[in-house]
Amino acid sequence: MSAAWLDDIKWNGDGLVPAVAQEAGSGRVLMVAWMNRDALAETAASGRAVYWSRSRNKLWRKGEESGHVQTVREIHLDCDADVVLLTVEQAGGIACHTGRHSCFFRRLDKDQWVTMDPVLQDPARIYRGGAGHE
Amino acid sequence: MSAAWLDDIKWNGDGLVPAVAQEAGSGRVLMVAWMNRDALAETAASGRAVYWSRSRNKLWRKGEESGHVQTVREIHLDCDADVVLLTVEQAGGIACHTGRHSCFFRRLDKDQWVTMDPVLQDPARIYRGGAGHE
Repeated sequence: MSAAWLDDIKWNGDGLVPAVAQEAGSGRVLMVAWMNRDALAETAASGRAVYWSRSRNKLWRKGEESGHVQTVREIHLDCDADVVLLTVEQAGGIACHTGRHSCFFRRLDKDQWVTMDPVLQDPARIYRGGAGHE
Repeated sequence: MSAAWLDDIKWNGDGLVPAVAQEAGSGRVLMVAWMNRDALAETAASGRAVYWSRSRNKLWRKGEESGHVQTVREIHLDCDADVVLLTVEQAGGIACHTGRHSCFFRRLDKDQWVTMDPVLQDPARIYRGGAGHE
């Protein structure tokens, strides 16, 4: 796809940028994943968050298996043009493959990570294939 | 430094993880930078955000030149243990080297990036050396 706004982005050596998904309304940071040019182009065109899965090496249409799609309200770019920020509505209120609202459910308490958020849905029920990550 | 909570983190091939800084209160995502083990250890110990500058290849104590330090309230870790989220208080209300509140001051409007946030302080006055990024 040829588009000037996509050319403005400074893709890294692998052709990727980090993408932060922030929930509209709550302001909660839900997750950080990666996007390549195709993922960002499709996100903008479809209005649904599409990432690049580095583990599966393919486009990852968030929610395609879990139903936990992210409807994109806004797309922001940072000063260095190498990080994208999405404002999203999170279907089901669950962004994380562990069944939690946000992926950032652990907080450092003195010298250990403490889980703060409850599991809202059993991951085994989210993913019929049981693979965890979509 | 030896610490189990630091060992929990999945540093990338360069020994880094992305770190998202989110403003306490406003919930605004201010910036995304990188941290190595020393940066995160010092952040936790000092209560001030310390990043790893990939361009200068050294620790970057945010605000050391600009005065725009970030006081860290909370440190979160994501499900994959490869992204850190800081909740911070932003001194001066300016996180970006362009003199804006947030680095994510551009928003995609149809097919172009539009600047949404005003410059609150002339960068030339922020950085005595005039180098821009700290």
